[in-house]
Order: sequence, then C-alpha cells, then structure tokens
Amino acid sequence: MARDADVAVVGAGIVGLAIAWEAARAGRSVVVIDPEPGSGATFAAAGMLAPVSELHYQEEDLLGLTLASAALYPEFIAPLAAAGVASGFRPTGTLVVGADAADRQALADLRQLQLRHGRGVEPLGLRQVRGQEPMLGPQLSCASSIEQDHQVDPRILAAGLQAALAGSATGKGRDGWLLRDRAARLLHADPSDASSAVTGVGLAGGTAVRAGEVVLANGLGAAGIGGLPEGLRLPLRPVHGDILRLRVPAPLRPLLTATVRGLVRGLPVYLVPREDGTVVLGATQREDGSAEVSAGGVYQLLRDAQVLVPAVAELELGEATARARPGTPDNAPLLGRVAAGGTCVPGLILATGFFRHGVLLAPAAARICRLLMGGRGDPGWDRFRPDRFSPSLIEKSLM
Amino acid sequence: MARDADVAVVGAGIVGLAIAWEAARAGRSVVVIDPEPGSGATFAAAGMLAPVSELHYQEEDLLGLTLASAALYPEFIAPLAAAGVASGFRPTGTLVVGADAADRQALADLRQLQLRHGRGVEPLGLRQVRGQEPMLGPQLSCASSIEQDHQVDPRILAAGLQAALAGSATGKGRDGWLLRDRAARLLHADPSDASSAVTGVGLAGGTAVRAGEVVLANGLGAAGIGGLPEGLRLPLRPVHGDILRLRVPAPLRPLLTATVRGLVRGLPVYLVPREDGTVVLGATQREDGSAEVSAGGVYQLLRDAQVLVPAVAELELGEATARARPGTPDNAPLLGRVAAGGTCVPGLILATGFFRHGVLLAPAAARICRLLMGGRGDPGWDRFRPDRFSPSLIEKSLM
Repeated sequence: MARDADVAVVGAGIVGLAIAWEAARAGRSVVVIDPEPGSGATFAAAGMLAPVSELHYQEEDLLGLTLASAALYPEFIAPLAAAGVASGFRPTGTLVVGADAADRQALADLRQLQLRHGRGVEPLGLRQVRGQEPMLGPQLSCASSIEQDHQVDPRILAAGLQAALAGSATGKGRDGWLLRDRAARLLHADPSDASSAVTGVGLAGGTAVRAGEVVLANGLGAAGIGGLPEGLRLPLRPVHGDILRLRVPAPLRPLLTATVRGLVRGLPVYLVPREDGTVVLGATQREDGSAEVSAGGVYQLLRDAQVLVPAVAELELGEATARARPGTPDNAPLLGRVAAGGTCVPGLILATGFFRHGVLLAPAAARICRLLMGGRGDPGWDRFRPDRFSPSLIEKSLM
Repeated sequence: MARDADVAVVGAGIVGLAIAWEAARAGRSVVVIDPEPGSGATFAAAGMLAPVSELHYQEEDLLGLTLASAALYPEFIAPLAAAGVASGFRPTGTLVVGADAADRQALADLRQLQLRHGRGVEPLGLRQVRGQEPMLGPQLSCASSIEQDHQVDPRILAAGLQAALAGSATGKGRDGWLLRDRAARLLHADPSDASSAVTGVGLAGGTAVRAGEVVLANGLGAAGIGGLPEGLRLPLRPVHGDILRLRVPAPLRPLLTATVRGLVRGLPVYLVPREDGTVVLGATQREDGSAEVSAGGVYQLLRDAQVLVPAVAELELGEATARARPGTPDNAPLLGRVAAGGTCVPGLILATGFFRHGVLLAPAAARICRLLMGGRGDPGWDRFRPDRFSPSLIEKSLM
C-alpha cells in the first residue's frame, strides 16, 4: 500500500513539532496529526531552558539529556531564524533567590548538588542582585546567578515550527503537512498482531494515514491510543499546573531583565520576563486531577511572587491557564522504540512523558528520533526506553 | 419628521434594559442603542440586592431609593417569569461576618447606623452561623443575618430583559428593538441650540434615530455623547472593580447557601452563591484608571475570601473580570431631567451614575423614568437631578 508520508507524528506540541521539523529537514516527508496544535502543555509552558536551575534531587540521571538539549537550542532554532520565522528564544540569564533562612539553606544544599555535577552557580550579594534587578523585594535571604539558563516562548516557537513545516512543504498528506484530527489507533502490518510492524495511524474521522514511521508525541494521549504493542504499559499521569500571564504597565517596564526563580517558604515560584512586556508567573504542581485553574494555586502564585517582586501587585492579570504535564514514575521521558521479542516493533517510536521538561528537551528528542529513524541507537538512551515500566516486554526481549 | 420610536434608550446595561422594558410594558414603542448589550458593568456585577448591608456612611440619602427598589424587585421580575423568561432572582439571605476584633467593632458601629434607619440586622452567635454555613472559617469575630438582602444574576437578568423586549415586539426601529451601534450625539429640534428639545440620537454608523424621549443610560459613556445641553456637567468617574467567578467542585456543593459579606482586616469582600454551583467573589474598588484585571486585586480577593471560607482555595477559577462603575461625587445617581431656563430640556432623561447600585436600583430607575415620561415628578427625586453638579444651569433655572 502506498505511503502518505515517510513519517507520521501524532501530537503537535513542541515535542511533536520539533520531531517533525527535524525529520523534514533530513529530507523526509512528514505528516503531523493533531486536532488542535499547540493547545496542550505547550500552551501553558513558561519555556525556561534551565537544566541547572531545574536540577532536582532524584533527577540527576536526566541532567545529561537536559544539558545536551539546552546546548542544541541555538542550532535547533538557527534554521527558523534563517527562514525568517520567529523562535521566541532569548538568552536571558536566571537568578535564583530565597525568601527566608530555610529557603537559603535549601538552595545552598541544592547548589552543592549542582556543583557536584560541575555546573556553575554564582553566588551574588543581595546588594549586587538589587543593582541588577531593582524590583526585587526587600525580604530576600540569598541570591545566585545561573548565566547559562535561558528561555524560549513556547507559543512563538510552536507557531514558528508550524510555519516552517508549512513552508518546507515536505508533507504528502492529504491535507498538507497537518491533519487536524485525533489519532485513534495504530495500524499494523498484521492487523491481528499489535506487536507487528506499525504501518500507520487510523484517525477518529475515519481516515487512515500510512507512514514508514509513526512517532507518538501526544503527551498523556499516548497511553490511550488503540493498537499499542501488547504488554506495553505507559504509566503516564497528569501533573497539572497553574500559570499566569501578567502584563507590565509601561511605567514599570522592564519589571525584570532576568528570569527570577525563587523558593518562598519552601515553595518554588518563577517569573519569566517576555520581550512583549508580559511576565509569565508559574507554576504550581497539582495531582488533584482537576484540569481547571485552581483558585488556591493562583493565590499561592501571586502571594509568593509578591515576596520576590512586590510590584507584581501592580500588574494586570492577562491570562490564567491550567494544563496537564505528562509525568512518569521516574520523571524521565518515554523516548525510543518498544521491545518485541528479541527486537523492536518496527515503525513505532514513542516520545512522551516529558513532564516539566518538554520545551527544554524538544531538540534532544528530535535529534534522538531522527537517529533512531536512521537505524542508530545509543545505549545511553536505554534509560528512557518507553518499555522500561513493562516487565513482560523486557522479559520477552531478554529471552 | 416621523418618529422611529416613542422612546430611544442609549445603553443596554441592566438600567437601560429595565427602563426600556418598563416603557414597553406601558405601551410605548422602544429602541435600545448599544454596540454590545450587557457587556459593561452589568457583565461584572455580582447582583446583590442589598440595601441594608450596602448601607455606607455618607450614603444615607440613598437608602430610601435603594429600599424602594429592592421592594420593587418581585413585581419587576414577575412579568418576566410570566413570559417564561429567567430573571436570575434568588431570595437568598445575607450573612455579614467580621474577621478580627477591629472588623467586629466596625460592623457593630455600622449596625448602629442601620438600626437608626430602622433596619433589622440580627446578631448571630458564631456557633449558630456555622450551623447554617458549615464552610465558614474558624477565625471569625462576629456574624449577623440580614434576611431581606437578596440577589439576582445580572447576566441572566440582562439576557431575560433582552428576550422580553424582543418578544414584546414593540420596537419600530429599523432593526427591531435593538440597534447595535454607538450613540454619537443627541439631535435637537433646533440644531443650533443644545438646550432645545431633544428629538433623537445620531449613531456612529451615520443613522439617525428619531424619538419622543431619549434616555441616556449608558453609564460613563453619557458624559461623552455629543449635543448635551449647554452647561451640563456630568462628573462621572470610573471606579474599577475586579471580580472572580469560581466553580465549586461537586464534593464541596453547596459551598454556601447565603450570600456572605465580610470585613477582613478592614477590607470588604463578598461571596455570592449562584444556582449553577458557581460563586461570585468580589469586589475591589480601584480608581487607578486601569481597565484590566489587577493582579493585586485578585490576590486580595482570594486572600480575604479564604479567611471567610477556607475552601475557596479548592475552587476553580472560572473567570476574572474587571469593569468600571460610573461614580459620582456624592455616590448617588444622575437620574431625571435637565434644567433649561425655567423648565427642563424636553425629550431628554438621564439615568446614569449608579456606581455600585446599578442592579439594585434598576427597577426604581425604570419606574421613575416612566413617571417622568408621563409628566409626573416627585420633589424627592430632586436630590438625584442630573444637573445638580452644574451650577450655571441651576442658577438659570432659579432666574
């Protein structure tokens, strides 16, 4: 049967779009399937490219990937800039501040962890940091600078990747590169065997898309698609976050020049200044299952942000958004091929479970997917294998 | 010249719609002019019908009108109900609570004022009030009940009045009863004399609407319309407010059965429970000129509401809205005819400046306008005359 495209990517969030764009640049024809591109976690994300300040305890295994992906960003966005498409990338630095003595201690401990991994966190005097950011509050207990942690505006990047994909015109799908429909099920070479080669995607609207490779990059939706290889468990859980977009009135601009991440009485909060004079304020983490904006979450964000930057009270509330991030048991992505007997299910790649790191990890995910499509793999990626929570599959592949 | 309607009402907020409806029920043909009906202060308003709990110092002159209007509500909405149109009226009672000792003292003082005006405010024990409203917080200092203060949902009422006006089909305007355009100027019998009889309204789109009576009920917009009688000063100022719509998750319903008004460390806050399981949380008063939702305002509302009802943190933030209310120097409306020499400008009635009381005062404003159109007046209304801040006009009318 004729193919509609070399690669079908399910999900047009940052990760899916980045994979599609990388594949298109490698000369493959691409179709992306999403009923509403860029409307999921990408729509909410603050877009901090912050491998160092995002380094959490128990996530040290991820550091290699996050650092590599941050390093890939300039070359990832360069072709967008060359095509005259905005990427939303800004090499603003990051300040990390603490509110009280306990926050100072917690950040000092974290700094030890960061230094153990060889990453530079520059302690700053409070007077010095106020010279840089005069709007910081009077009650801070400590400050440090992480120059290498930058930002990107995920909405601009998602729009830019879509424009680039449309412009590259590599898609041979029925409606160009984008199919605005929901992926319902994987299609297999042997329809009676869900572990046989994947040959395409069946859409909710009834259409079938035939492709040489199918990449599942649809976040939490990946676990719900039909026709997944037998025995594959995708333990994705929704971790909701509330995030605010605030407009800075002209007399207060610029409110900040660097991204400010704070720990306020033990709770993390950050303020990311955008080029358009807005500030992104986030982010709560809730596992209460509610997809709606939490009143308590908004209260907490505004309360803690005012400790860092009192003038937050003078800003305009432009938007309050809640979205779910796809969490995994070890907070690492589900990225790669799926075991089937002694080999892998041909034609299927998973790229989901990016949790808080989707925007940061998009270039690395795109690179890894391209290499996998080219038949190359790296034992280092095994820790992200999407079948690592599926004992029966792993057993089978060892037999 | 032929008339398009007996009455042209400029402004389709609650006040303008109520006036139009009352005129239509009195058998007059009516045209209402508004580019976006119900989108101003009406869209934000919580709709408390609370003459007693809204009684403020220095606003005692208004009490007669607010009480009369509250008493008019049942007969005002009865024809809507009869026509099968929802009014959003709910005879829920009101609880007034204080947070700390100073709030208790302030509310006790206010109660003396209310009792001086013969209005019943029933003190309640805290145990008793918690029996009625188990979600109230543990830190309250006092509580009292005002059974006669009810509520209406202004959005439902505005939609209901529009449906009723459309159904009554009394309009003879070019596009039925509603013209979705902006009123640009008053038209006069003598175009060279802005104090001559008003004969209609010129619209921004170029159309002219001829009417026997023109009612300016367009809030802050009234002061900006062209062709106002010479010497008429309309000292309207925007008093902005931030207001939140919160959804109550099913396990927490009902969050409240009564409207709860509180004083929390000197700041007023209220929670109005709606029939659809939402709660309206308001309201700040800002004169900072910003039409946008204030981050500091939202913070203050959520903070203080949680003192009254801690479970507010568990609610979903459905909507954050800011609107301007038209304030006047004495907080009373500009309601009636305008002096011109020894008489009044024929064909012109003003109905604006309702500040916090627009929804409550709509039935009274409608009644007064109808009586004025019928040639009747009441010396008691003189205190609301729209020319009371225009010394030159008052002087002339005394000559």
